[in-house]
Amino acid sequence: MSDRRRGRGNRRRREDGTDRAAPVAAPAFVTRKIPYLAYLDEDGLEAIERQADWLMEEIGLEFRENPHALEIWRKAGADVTDTRVRASGAMIRQLLKTAPAEFVQLARNPARSVRIGGDAQVFAPVYGSPFVRDLEGGRRYGTFEDFEKLVKIVAQLPSLHHTGLVICEPCDIPVSKRHLDMLYSHMRLTDKPHLGAITEKSRAEDSVAMARILHGADTTDANCVIMANVNTNSPLLVDKVVTEAIEVYCGAGQAIIVAPFVLSGAMGPVTTAASIAQALAEAMMCGAYSQLIRPGAPFVLGNFLSSMSLKSGAPTFGMPEPVISNYIIGQLARRLGLPLRCGGSLTASKIEDAQAAYESADSMHSTMLAGANFVIHAAGWLEGGLATGFEKLVMDAERLGAYANVLGGIALDDNAFARDAYSEVEPAGHFLGCGHTMANYQTAFYDAALSDSENVESWEERGSKDMRARAFERWNELLRDYEAPPIDPGTDEALKDFVARRKRELPDAWY
Amino acid sequence: MSDRRRGRGNRRRREDGTDRAAPVAAPAFVTRKIPYLAYLDEDGLEAIERQADWLMEEIGLEFRENPHALEIWRKAGADVTDTRVRASGAMIRQLLKTAPAEFVQLARNPARSVRIGGDAQVFAPVYGSPFVRDLEGGRRYGTFEDFEKLVKIVAQLPSLHHTGLVICEPCDIPVSKRHLDMLYSHMRLTDKPHLGAITEKSRAEDSVAMARILHGADTTDANCVIMANVNTNSPLLVDKVVTEAIEVYCGAGQAIIVAPFVLSGAMGPVTTAASIAQALAEAMMCGAYSQLIRPGAPFVLGNFLSSMSLKSGAPTFGMPEPVISNYIIGQLARRLGLPLRCGGSLTASKIEDAQAAYESADSMHSTMLAGANFVIHAAGWLEGGLATGFEKLVMDAERLGAYANVLGGIALDDNAFARDAYSEVEPAGHFLGCGHTMANYQTAFYDAALSDSENVESWEERGSKDMRARAFERWNELLRDYEAPPIDPGTDEALKDFVARRKRELPDAWY
Repeated sequence: MSDRRRGRGNRRRREDGTDRAAPVAAPAFVTRKIPYLAYLDEDGLEAIERQADWLMEEIGLEFRENPHALEIWRKAGADVTDTRVRASGAMIRQLLKTAPAEFVQLARNPARSVRIGGDAQVFAPVYGSPFVRDLEGGRRYGTFEDFEKLVKIVAQLPSLHHTGLVICEPCDIPVSKRHLDMLYSHMRLTDKPHLGAITEKSRAEDSVAMARILHGADTTDANCVIMANVNTNSPLLVDKVVTEAIEVYCGAGQAIIVAPFVLSGAMGPVTTAASIAQALAEAMMCGAYSQLIRPGAPFVLGNFLSSMSLKSGAPTFGMPEPVISNYIIGQLARRLGLPLRCGGSLTASKIEDAQAAYESADSMHSTMLAGANFVIHAAGWLEGGLATGFEKLVMDAERLGAYANVLGGIALDDNAFARDAYSEVEPAGHFLGCGHTMANYQTAFYDAALSDSENVESWEERGSKDMRARAFERWNELLRDYEAPPIDPGTDEALKDFVARRKRELPDAWY
Repeated sequence: MSDRRRGRGNRRRREDGTDRAAPVAAPAFVTRKIPYLAYLDEDGLEAIERQADWLMEEIGLEFRENPHALEIWRKAGADVTDTRVRASGAMIRQLLKTAPAEFVQLARNPARSVRIGGDAQVFAPVYGSPFVRDLEGGRRYGTFEDFEKLVKIVAQLPSLHHTGLVICEPCDIPVSKRHLDMLYSHMRLTDKPHLGAITEKSRAEDSVAMARILHGADTTDANCVIMANVNTNSPLLVDKVVTEAIEVYCGAGQAIIVAPFVLSGAMGPVTTAASIAQALAEAMMCGAYSQLIRPGAPFVLGNFLSSMSLKSGAPTFGMPEPVISNYIIGQLARRLGLPLRCGGSLTASKIEDAQAAYESADSMHSTMLAGANFVIHAAGWLEGGLATGFEKLVMDAERLGAYANVLGGIALDDNAFARDAYSEVEPAGHFLGCGHTMANYQTAFYDAALSDSENVESWEERGSKDMRARAFERWNELLRDYEAPPIDPGTDEALKDFVARRKRELPDAWY
């Protein structure tokens, strides 16, 4: 699996004589075939769980702006004092038992439906950046034009299995209406699964309503067809954005990810163990709440931990503390039997330089090995999430293809051991032209098209381009190649009508 | 542990008012405190071992140019036909039992002695590049001036525990003599441990002789004070460079690393499992030979696997196949009870761009997690090993400090769980100024000085420098700060005399 597609058999000749990959089916998600790293031992995991239980039972979480949520907690037997909700670890774990260990989010193209949980790992692009950056246009506020370009690029990257939602903020559309345009783009321009909006209750409801149009009422009632991601207000605060998103999505049998974002030392204690435990407690209580809304609703345990610059207090990414936390939270999620969202290709760098790549690779290598089942920000993240990089998007996506191969394990059959080759190639010989090499070379190695591995002379002859320059060419090529997937005209009309009606109903608002 | 050293307590003020790290003791090597990833299960590992045994027993290795070696194998009971040596896996494993699972290489500064094997992980710089590259001087043949600069930089990087040997080739010195100048530089300009020469038998002997002068005859006889690295001629060929290096180093009770370099599809089969098995067989037989030379001599199992570009056959680095092989070879070495050398911060990129960093990070993340006990090329490698990058050296070294923290595990004591902080900080509050944060922030996070995590405005105000530009400033700063460690004047004289005498004896030769 490569972002240039595998092998050469299905390439077509372009008029300029260069090869170009033709669209072929890529796996809809990664199926992990390798074990996990047990970063912490049983004692260590229990210590973190004890701390999470202590937080839930002794400190509790604030559930604000939603008296209905407090009523639900009270009925369930939690200790509710004002807006503080305390519950025992045992009670929360009991509630979480109805959450599925894995579930399928249907895509409108069934071949692109994704499994979330278990040995499935699903990669989605960056989410929520107000700015975009590309090599030609520099850094600027994202527009709807940028947004649509990004959706079209993501639609064609085989290592991005899911298109997320806010690949950049379309800042030229009122906040009150942009979810409608974004959702329609995801539904029309790709046939991969995507996320719904959460910023306000009616926007969540619009998301589920549009999913119902796209997938049909029966399918939507019987399946997960849309999922949403929402962040708690760490430390230990859950506002109505969170509880209402849970109510809307889980109430409709759809999926919710709740991800505490903890910048250690600001939204949580400065020590890694305490930050992991706090994030676990926050996510567990939100998961329990999802099951109170609808037992069996798909819930994804989220985790997003960041370290801090000692110089300025700015969040840092790809550093050892969040790398470690990825490995540990993977263990903790599996102990709970819940799908996990964590990590991503994260960096604090402003541009696609070595810093961006070192930090993104360490962040994503640990995300991948840790067993994250759903990864938002797997590609395209720059500047601590403030900017979506067009080049960064295709660069990261190419590395995701490599990670998929690491997760896939290696062949250990007779062909893999190549005993026959040793009768053809003597010691001190070479395997370049031998039968085994000829029979296997097309699929033996990941084909990283953005990595230049040629000698320095060839590289200089081609203009001494760095990876950014090659990535710029690549995403422009993808945009030129883009073709929208077919859609039922009636469905398309119904979606357009919905968007038009809701836009008429909603006032323009910029918050 | 940071490449800017930990904390702020031991910084001194520079005249220009900026902070600079003062030299402090850094750990001499990394002591791993976390488990390993069991990438392959027992069946998979046994399948690879069976293949290695089959190669040793049925195909055999060519031991050429050294009839003495054949004689030794014959006496040990191996099947020797012409220059082909075949031996059973059982026999080879029996011989390897006398090799120590771990050993100490003494440094002339005892605080910098390194343990090789077990839970110790030691990082050394790039080895063998004929070219150097830096941001100002571009790409050029390495000179002795470059070499000495690189040694001085490595001497000051706390995450490089060992200085290796050929940090770049000093191409302006005859090949027949450059080992003498390189060895003297390592001995005089740093007090860390280093490697010896192997390219010709007398050069290996010179290396041991100089180590004997530096450490004294008694210490040298009773300890490992020098180690060397040599590559087999894959596939399945061991020439006299290898056997003589083993004879010289192990014969003197010193350590040898034997590392097959297998470009899958050229020097080994194109499939990963077969390449790993072949490299294992080659290294195991060389290890057995080291124990025939001197039972108990320190031997390090080496492994260096590369994948290949489908376009050109050029070697590629940081790709999933060698990443996987790092994890697997780590498992295999531990089963043999031998220290392991593998991996590094490898890339095919010509410059310090995102490609270089993505590939280096994935390569080194897996090297580190896999448990490589000794890592050559841990910093400074560019262009498939053809060039040593001055900026790359300090960039990689900074990431090595982060990896050391990942390997170090996390604190799980009362302070790490910070329960008191929750009485000070209410839900929805923030931890920035609380007592626990103030007491812990200086050591809570890895301080990656070359990573810019500030906001885009600050970054632009400081000139929009990418990581390369910052790294250029960093290594120049290190060179300005460099002070040679003290050395006993008598020892220094004796070393100089030895070098002068050998230079008189040796003809100038450029091969």
